[in-house]
Amino acid sequence: MSMDIVKLLEDVAQKRISVEEAQLKIKKEPFEDIGFAKIDLHRKNRQGVGEVIYGAGKSADEVRDIVKLMKDRQDDGILITRLSDDKAEVLKESFDDITYYEKAKLAIVGKKHDITGKGKIVVVTGGTSDIPVAEEAALTAEFLGNEVERVYDVGVAGIHRLFANLDTLMEASVVIAIAGMEGALASVVGGLVDCPVIAVPTSVGYGASFEGLSALLSMLNSCAAGVTVVNIDNGFGAGFFANKINQR
Amino acid sequence: MSMDIVKLLEDVAQKRISVEEAQLKIKKEPFEDIGFAKIDLHRKNRQGVGEVIYGAGKSADEVRDIVKLMKDRQDDGILITRLSDDKAEVLKESFDDITYYEKAKLAIVGKKHDITGKGKIVVVTGGTSDIPVAEEAALTAEFLGNEVERVYDVGVAGIHRLFANLDTLMEASVVIAIAGMEGALASVVGGLVDCPVIAVPTSVGYGASFEGLSALLSMLNSCAAGVTVVNIDNGFGAGFFANKINQR
Amino acid sequence: MSMDIVKLLEDVAQKRISVEEAQLKIKKEPFEDIGFAKIDLHRKNRQGVGEVIYGAGKSADEVRDIVKLMKDRQDDGILITRLSDDKAEVLKESFDDITYYEKAKLAIVGKKHDITGKGKIVVVTGGTSDIPVAEEAALTAEFLGNEVERVYDVGVAGIHRLFANLDTLMEASVVIAIAGMEGALASVVGGLVDCPVIAVPTSVGYGASFEGLSALLSMLNSCAAGVTVVNIDNGFGAGFFANKINQR
Amino acid sequence: MSMDIVKLLEDVAQKRISVEEAQLKIKKEPFEDIGFAKIDLHRKNRQGVGEVIYGAGKSADEVRDIVKLMKDRQDDGILITRLSDDKAEVLKESFDDITYYEKAKLAIVGKKHDITGKGKIVVVTGGTSDIPVAEEAALTAEFLGNEVERVYDVGVAGIHRLFANLDTLMEASVVIAIAGMEGALASVVGGLVDCPVIAVPTSVGYGASFEGLSALLSMLNSCAAGVTVVNIDNGFGAGFFANKINQR
Amino acid sequence: MSMDIVKLLEDVAQKRISVEEAQLKIKKEPFEDIGFAKIDLHRKNRQGVGEVIYGAGKSADEVRDIVKLMKDRQDDGILITRLSDDKAEVLKESFDDITYYEKAKLAIVGKKHDITGKGKIVVVTGGTSDIPVAEEAALTAEFLGNEVERVYDVGVAGIHRLFANLDTLMEASVVIAIAGMEGALASVVGGLVDCPVIAVPTSVGYGASFEGLSALLSMLNSCAAGVTVVNIDNGFGAGFFANKINQR
Amino acid sequence: MSMDIVKLLEDVAQKRISVEEAQLKIKKEPFEDIGFAKIDLHRKNRQGVGEVIYGAGKSADEVRDIVKLMKDRQDDGILITRLSDDKAEVLKESFDDITYYEKAKLAIVGKKHDITGKGKIVVVTGGTSDIPVAEEAALTAEFLGNEVERVYDVGVAGIHRLFANLDTLMEASVVIAIAGMEGALASVVGGLVDCPVIAVPTSVGYGASFEGLSALLSMLNSCAAGVTVVNIDNGFGAGFFANKINQR
Amino acid sequence: MSMDIVKLLEDVAQKRISVEEAQLKIKKEPFEDIGFAKIDLHRKNRQGVGEVIYGAGKSADEVRDIVKLMKDRQDDGILITRLSDDKAEVLKESFDDITYYEKAKLAIVGKKHDITGKGKIVVVTGGTSDIPVAEEAALTAEFLGNEVERVYDVGVAGIHRLFANLDTLMEASVVIAIAGMEGALASVVGGLVDCPVIAVPTSVGYGASFEGLSALLSMLNSCAAGVTVVNIDNGFGAGFFANKINQR
Amino acid sequence: MSMDIVKLLEDVAQKRISVEEAQLKIKKEPFEDIGFAKIDLHRKNRQGVGEVIYGAGKSADEVRDIVKLMKDRQDDGILITRLSDDKAEVLKESFDDITYYEKAKLAIVGKKHDITGKGKIVVVTGGTSDIPVAEEAALTAEFLGNEVERVYDVGVAGIHRLFANLDTLMEASVVIAIAGMEGALASVVGGLVDCPVIAVPTSVGYGASFEGLSALLSMLNSCAAGVTVVNIDNGFGAGFFANKINQR
Repeated sequence: MSMDIVKLLEDVAQKRISVEEAQLKIKKEPFEDIGFAKIDLHRKNRQGVGEVIYGAGKSADEVRDIVKLMKDRQDDGILITRLSDDKAEVLKESFDDITYYEKAKLAIVGKKHDITGKGKIVVVTGGTSDIPVAEEAALTAEFLGNEVERVYDVGVAGIHRLFANLDTLMEASVVIAIAGMEGALASVVGGLVDCPVIAVPTSVGYGASFEGLSALLSMLNSCAAGVTVVNIDNGFGAGFFANKINQR
Repeated sequence: MSMDIVKLLEDVAQKRISVEEAQLKIKKEPFEDIGFAKIDLHRKNRQGVGEVIYGAGKSADEVRDIVKLMKDRQDDGILITRLSDDKAEVLKESFDDITYYEKAKLAIVGKKHDITGKGKIVVVTGGTSDIPVAEEAALTAEFLGNEVERVYDVGVAGIHRLFANLDTLMEASVVIAIAGMEGALASVVGGLVDCPVIAVPTSVGYGASFEGLSALLSMLNSCAAGVTVVNIDNGFGAGFFANKINQR
Repeated sequence: MSMDIVKLLEDVAQKRISVEEAQLKIKKEPFEDIGFAKIDLHRKNRQGVGEVIYGAGKSADEVRDIVKLMKDRQDDGILITRLSDDKAEVLKESFDDITYYEKAKLAIVGKKHDITGKGKIVVVTGGTSDIPVAEEAALTAEFLGNEVERVYDVGVAGIHRLFANLDTLMEASVVIAIAGMEGALASVVGGLVDCPVIAVPTSVGYGASFEGLSALLSMLNSCAAGVTVVNIDNGFGAGFFANKINQR
Repeated sequence: MSMDIVKLLEDVAQKRISVEEAQLKIKKEPFEDIGFAKIDLHRKNRQGVGEVIYGAGKSADEVRDIVKLMKDRQDDGILITRLSDDKAEVLKESFDDITYYEKAKLAIVGKKHDITGKGKIVVVTGGTSDIPVAEEAALTAEFLGNEVERVYDVGVAGIHRLFANLDTLMEASVVIAIAGMEGALASVVGGLVDCPVIAVPTSVGYGASFEGLSALLSMLNSCAAGVTVVNIDNGFGAGFFANKINQR
Repeated sequence: MSMDIVKLLEDVAQKRISVEEAQLKIKKEPFEDIGFAKIDLHRKNRQGVGEVIYGAGKSADEVRDIVKLMKDRQDDGILITRLSDDKAEVLKESFDDITYYEKAKLAIVGKKHDITGKGKIVVVTGGTSDIPVAEEAALTAEFLGNEVERVYDVGVAGIHRLFANLDTLMEASVVIAIAGMEGALASVVGGLVDCPVIAVPTSVGYGASFEGLSALLSMLNSCAAGVTVVNIDNGFGAGFFANKINQR
Repeated sequence: MSMDIVKLLEDVAQKRISVEEAQLKIKKEPFEDIGFAKIDLHRKNRQGVGEVIYGAGKSADEVRDIVKLMKDRQDDGILITRLSDDKAEVLKESFDDITYYEKAKLAIVGKKHDITGKGKIVVVTGGTSDIPVAEEAALTAEFLGNEVERVYDVGVAGIHRLFANLDTLMEASVVIAIAGMEGALASVVGGLVDCPVIAVPTSVGYGASFEGLSALLSMLNSCAAGVTVVNIDNGFGAGFFANKINQR
Repeated sequence: MSMDIVKLLEDVAQKRISVEEAQLKIKKEPFEDIGFAKIDLHRKNRQGVGEVIYGAGKSADEVRDIVKLMKDRQDDGILITRLSDDKAEVLKESFDDITYYEKAKLAIVGKKHDITGKGKIVVVTGGTSDIPVAEEAALTAEFLGNEVERVYDVGVAGIHRLFANLDTLMEASVVIAIAGMEGALASVVGGLVDCPVIAVPTSVGYGASFEGLSALLSMLNSCAAGVTVVNIDNGFGAGFFANKINQR
Repeated sequence: MSMDIVKLLEDVAQKRISVEEAQLKIKKEPFEDIGFAKIDLHRKNRQGVGEVIYGAGKSADEVRDIVKLMKDRQDDGILITRLSDDKAEVLKESFDDITYYEKAKLAIVGKKHDITGKGKIVVVTGGTSDIPVAEEAALTAEFLGNEVERVYDVGVAGIHRLFANLDTLMEASVVIAIAGMEGALASVVGGLVDCPVIAVPTSVGYGASFEGLSALLSMLNSCAAGVTVVNIDNGFGAGFFANKINQR
C-alpha cells in the first residue's frame, strides 16, 4: 500500500490526476461495496491471491451476489469454503462452472489455478474422521496451484502406518499434519521431516478433547521445532499458508 | 472391612467379646490418633501396602513423629514423598537408616521391600526435565518390591531414540510414560507395546503448556487404547499403581 | 517392531529375500489401505488384541467395509463401539452374526473371546445414568475374554449401598469405578480395595459439572493411591485396560 | 433498614426531628468514615454480628486504627482474619487483650462471645494440610458463641477413620466439611448426617487440583443433597454461616 | 449407621438374631435393588427425608417403577424433580394422586408434608427468567413442610423493587437468592438480612455468562458473609438445604 | 432515590402526607407488580430512559402483557430486544404500531425518540456475520434519539476498507466497534479516533474463538487506551451506553 | 490521518513539497525512533492526549530517556503509570518536577492539565484493597484535566454506605466503579445513576476470584444497562475513558 | 530414516556389514547417551539443523557437558536458548568462543552459520516489552544463516508507526509478528503482506491477558489468512520455522 501512495503522489505531482481524484482513488479502488459486504478486489495484487468467500455466515443469495461481482472483475476461479450442501445446490442453479466437494464443504467456481508451486504439499491425518478438514486443506492448496499428496489415517497408535509413508513425507516441500484427540501426529512428523510442518488440530474426539482444545494445546507445545499451528478445524488456513511457502 | 464386621459379629455372638468391646474395636483399631493426624496403621492389611507419608504439607517435626510411630508398629521400611532438602536434613538427625534421594525429593526410612514383582517396570521420559517425576515413580516402585528399568530422554522429536530402546519396552510388564509439553510420548508408546501403560503428565514446559494441562489433556485423549493417566507430576501414584499390577 | 527388523535383516543377509522385497514388506504388511482408512491388521500380534472399530466418525457403509475386510483376514470376533441405533440397523442387513447392545451403543460381530482372564473385573457406578458408559466398559472386557460383575447405582450419597457389595469389590481383580457429578466414588473405592482401580468420569450432571470436567478433576486428584483415570465417558478404554491387567 | 425509615418518618412527622436532621441521620449514623475505610458500626444491629476485620489487604497500622475505633464504640470482642504473623506482632504492642492463633492466621481482641448456640458445630477435614482453614472456621464459630468439636484427618482414602467418628457427626447441629484434592469428604459426610453440611474446598493439592478448583467443583456437584459450598479456603465464611444456623 | 451397628451388635450378643441374619440385615435392609437402581428406602430414617427421584436420566417407565416401589413402602408423598412434560403425561396414567408443576418441571405423588418448619423461607429472584429454578426451590421446600414466600424479579438493576420487599426479607427464617447473569442479588441480600442466605446461580444470560459460570463465581466470592452456594440451576438443593435449617 | 427521600421527608414534615402514605409511596410507586414481573415504570425518571423489554426469556404472552401495561403509563415508544420471529408475529396481532427488525431480532412499539443526541454514533463491524449484533446496537441508539451511521465489513484483514471510511470515523461522537474472531478491529479503531470507543465482541468464529471468548479477551487487552467493552453479542448495551455519552 | 493525506496531496499538487519529501513526511513525522522504542509524538493531535508511558516493562533508564525526549517536544506534563518505588527514586534524580504517588504507582512529570472537563468524575470502590487501582484511575483523570471525587469502601455488603453517598453519585458526569471479589458494585451503581458507568474489576480476592476473573465476568454480565468494562486492575484505562466522555 | 533402512538393507545384502552390526548401527548411531540425556547428533542430517540446547531445565554443568560433546562431533556453532545470566557466567569459564545475548537469554558457542537464506526475515513487535522474545527469534534466525531486520514497537495503537515501515514489510521473505496483550499486530500485518507470517503471542500484559492466552487466541483466530502461530513466548520456534521457509 505504501507503494500505491508513492505512485499516487507522483501522479498528483505530475498533474496526471487531481487531488480529488487521488483521494477518491484511495477510497474507492480496492474494494466494491455491495451493501452488506465490501469485496476486496485488490487482494490479488496485494497478497498474490484473490479474496476467498467464507460461506458460513452468509445466505446462498449473498454468496451468489459476491461470486457474480467477482466473476465480472477477475479471470481467476473463485474459492468458497464452509459451504453447506443446500447452499451449494442453490449456487449450482446460477453457475454452470461450479464444482462442489461435499466432504470438504468447499466449492470452486471456474477452474483451479495452474500448478506453479515448486514442490509437493503432503497432507497427513491421524484418523478417518479428520478427512473433511484435510480435504479443505488439500483442495485449497490445489486450487491455488500446488501438487498435493494425501496420506490419511496414519495416527501414532499404529505408527508403522506412518513409517510406511516416510518416503512421501521426506520428499515433501511442506507437510500439513491434521489430527484431533491428542494431536501427537504433529510432533512425530515434526521430528522426522526437515520441511516446514503446519499443524491443524481438529475437533474430533469427545470428553476431555474439549472440542479440539486438547489437540490445539498439544500442537502448540510440540517438542519438535519447526511446527506452527492454525485454528481448530482450519484446513483452509493451512492450505493457504502452505501455498505461500510452496510458491516462493 | 466387611469381613471384619463378620468376624466381629461372630466374636460377639460367641460372647468372646462384649458389645462395648466390639464397638471400641471398630473405632480404635485401624488408626492411631496423634493429635494433628490419624495414622492409618491398618492400610497394609487392607491394601497390601503400608501408609505412605506425603511430606509436602507437614513440618519436619510432624513427619518425624509419624515416622517414629510407624517404626514402632511395623517392620517395613517407610516411604516419604515430596520431602524438601531441608526437612530431609532434620530427619537425618533422628534416623540413622534414612536414605534421601534428592532429585526425586523422596526418602526411605529402613529398607526397601524385597523384590516380589513378577516382571519389570519400565519408566520412560520425554526429556531430561521430566527426570525428577520419573525418579519419584521409579523409586516408589523399587521401594514396593519391583525391578525397574529407566529409559530417559526419548521424546518423540527424535523418535529413533525411543526405537533404539524398543526391546526394553517390549519386554516390560508395565510401562510408565512420563512427559510434559505435548505429552505425545504416551500415545506413541501406547501404540507400540502390549502391556499396560500408565501416563504421567508433567508440568515441564511454558506458555500454553499451562502448568501441565496440555500434557494432561493429551494423555487423556490418547488415540492408543490401553493408556490410563494420573495427576500432573504424580510420579508416586504411577509407581504405586504399577506395583499393584506387577504384584498380581 | 524392532524384532521384525532383526528378522528381516537376517533374511536379507541370508539372501532369502531381496532388498526390494524387504523394503516392500516393511511398508505393506501390517495394514490394509482401503482408501479412506488404513486397517491395522497387525495389531493383534503387536498388542494382543485386534483393531477395534470406533463407529462415531464413520458412515454405516464405511463400518461395513472395514468389518468385511477384517472378517476375511482374522477369525476373532470384531468389536464396534459408539455405534448409533440406525447404523446398527444397516449393519444387521449385512451380517447375520452381529449382536447390538443398545444401552452401550456397541456391537460385536462374531463371538466374544473365550474367557482367559484370571480374575473378575468388577464394574461399579455411582448412579443409574452412568450405566451406558458402564455397559461399554463391561461388554468390552467380556468381549476380550474376562468375567465381569456389575454393581450399579452405589454412589456415595447412600454409602451403605456400596458397603453391602464390599465382598464383591474385595474379591475383584480389577475395579472400574464409573461416576459423574463429583466423582467421589473412585476415591472411596480406591481407599477400600487392594486391586488396581480404573476411574471413568462421566458427563452425567449439570451446571458446574461442565460436561464431566468436575468428575475428571476429582478422579485425577483422588486422595487414594492406586487410582488411574481415562477420558470422560471412555468406558471402552477402561474395559480395554482392565483386560490388559487381568490377562497378565 | 426499611424499619429505620419507618421510625424516621414518624419522628419527622411528629416534628421530633427536622427534615435536615433526618437526612443527616440516614447518611451519618451507620458507619464511621476514617479516610481509607468506612467502618460499619451498624452491622451488629442489622446482622446480629459486628463487623469483622479482613486483615489481608490492610497494613498493620490500618488494622490498629480500625480496632481502636471499634473498641470505643462497642463492648464485644473483635475478630481479625487473615492476619500475618508480623502484623500480629505489631498489634500486640497496642492491645493487651489480643490473642493470636498462628495456624489460623486469626486474632481476637477482647473476649469471645458467650456460648449461645444451641447445638454443636463439628469441623471435619480430609487431611492435615486442611487444618489452617479448619481452624479459621472453628475459631470463628467459637468467637461467635458456639461449641465446636474438631475431627481432623478423616479423608475418604481411609474411610474407617471417618466412621469411627460417626457418633460425633450424628450428634452435630451443623457440620463443616473441609477438604482439598478431590473434595469427596463433603459428599460422603453429606450422605451420612441429617444436619446441614457446609463444604469448604481448600487449595491443598497440586497439578490438576488447580488451586482448589477440583475440590470446589466436586463439592458443588455433590450427589448428596443438603450440602452448600463457600469459596476456596474460606474457613471464616463457613464458621460464620454455621453460627447463623446454630443461633436460630 | 454407627448406631445401627451398636444395636445390631446387642441383638447378636443377646442371641436375638444370628450372625448370618445380622450380616444379611446390614446388606439388604436399607435399599431395594430393582435391577437398574438401588432405592434408598432407609434415607428417611437416616436423613429425615425420604429419597427424592431425579427424573433427568431415567425413562418414564423407570420413574414409574421406582414410584410404585416407594408407594408400597412408605406413606409420605414422593417428590420427582427434572421431570419433562411428556414423562409427566405418562406418569399421570399410572397415578391418580400426582400433581405436575410445569414451570418447575417437578411432580409430587401423594401429598406434601404437613408444615413443620418454624419460620418462613423466602425465595427471591433477580429476573423473570430465573422463575423455573425458583419454583423448583419453593416447591421442594413446600413439599418438605415449610411455608414459602416468593419475591420474584427484584434484581439489583432496579434495587428499589428489592427494598420495597425488605419487610418480607427481614422476617425470613432463610432466604434463597436466585440469579443469573452477574448474580449480584446474593451479595446485596446477604448484606441486608441476618438469616442464612442460600445463593443459587442460574444459567440465565448469554455470552460471558458462560452458562452460569459468571453468577456462580460471583456468589462464591460474595463480599457479604453468611452466604453459601449450590450448583448452577440447583433449585432443589437450595430448597432441601433451607428445609434442613428451618426444621431445626 | 436519595432525592425522593428528601422530598418525602419534607412532605411528611409538612403534614402534606401521613407516615403510612409515605411508606406506601416508597414501596408502591416505582414499579408495577404484574405477577410474573415487576415493571420498573420509574426508570425513565431515574435513568433518563424507560425500561427496555428483554424478550429472550419471556413468552409472547408475557411480552404482550408488559407492553400493554407500559403503553398505558407512558407515551414513549417501547423497545423489545432478542425477540424471535414467531413471537414478533404474535405481537403484531395485538399492536398496530409495532415495527420488527428481523436481522436485529428487535422490535419497536410506537415511535422512536426524536433525535436529541448531539453528535453521530458510528457503528463499524469487522465482517458481514457481525451485522445482526451491529443492527441491535444501531437500532437501539436510533430508538433512543441518535443519528447513527453504519460502516460494515471493514475488518483488519483488508485494512484499506477501514481507512477509506476514516473521515466518517474521525467525525464520530462515539464509535461502536463490533467484531468476532480475533477482535483486532477495536484496537485499530481505538488507535485512530479521539472519541470514546465501545467494543462489542461477537460469537462469530469457530474453534479457538470459543464462542466469542477470543474477541472478548482481545478487546479487554486492547493496547489502545480509550476502549471499553461490553458482553459478547451485547449490541443493545453498546447502543445504550453510546446514547448516554451522546446525550450529555 | 486521512486528513493528513489530503493536505499532503494538495501540497504535492501545488508543488509546495516534492514527492520524496511527502513520502518522508508520512514516515518520519509522527514518532521518534529511539532505538528500543518509537515515541508517538503525534498522539496529542490524533487523540487529544499525548502518549502516556507504561512503566511496567521498562528499565528506569529507558523511562528517563523517553521522558527527556517528550519534555523537549511538548509542553504538557507527562504521565507515567505502573512505576515501581525504586524506579521512581531513580527518576527523581533526573527530574525536579516529578511527583510520585506511591499508592497508585504513578508519577507525573511537570504539571497536571488545567481542568477543562465539564462535570465531575466520581470514583467508587467496593473495599479498601481496591484503592490502589482507584487512585490510578482518579489521578489519570485529574492529570487529564478533570475534577474527581473519591468515594471509597462502599461495597454492597453494607449498602447503606453507598446510599449515604447517593447525592455525589447522582451528580456525577461519569462514574468509575471499582471492585474485586464478586464485583456487584458495578451493577448496583449502574442501576442507580443515569450517567455512564465504567466498571473496573480488580484482582482483590482469593480462591474462586481467580485473580479478578470473577469480578470481570460479573461486570460484563451486569443486569444494569449502561455499564462498560475495562481490563482487570486497569485504573488508567478507566480514567482515560472517563476523561474522553467528560471532555466532550 | 526410511532411507537409512534402505541403505542398511543393501549393505547387509551385499554382506558389507553383518546383521549384528546393522542392528547395532540402528541403535547406537544417531545419538549419544550421556546418562542424563541422549544427544541427537543425527539431527543435522535428518532436519538440516543440529540439535539446539534448551537451557531452562538443565544445570550449568549439564549444559557444559552437552556442549563439549557436541563440539567434539560437529563443526557448527551451537545454539543454547533460555540460558539464565548466571549459567552463562559459568559457561564462559569453559568456552572462549561463547557469545551471550542477555536480552534474549541466548548463547552461541562458536560462530553463526554463513548466510544462506534467500530473502530477508523481518521481526516486528507490538511493544518494547516484547523485545526479549523478538531477540530470541531474530538471533535464532541469524544463527541459522539468515539476514534479519528488526522493526520494534509498532503496535496497532499507533498504526502509522507500522505503516512507516511498510516497505520493509513488503520486501520480507517471511515476517515474524510478535505481540502480547490483544495480539492484533499479527492480523494487521497478515492483511498487508503477501509472504508467510508467523505469529508469536507473548505473555506481556496483565489481568485478562492471562499470561499470553489473550494474544494466543487472538492470533489463532486471525481474520487474515496466511498466519500461523507458535507457543506463547516461543521466539526460538518462530525463528527456526522462518529459517525453514527462507532456506527453501
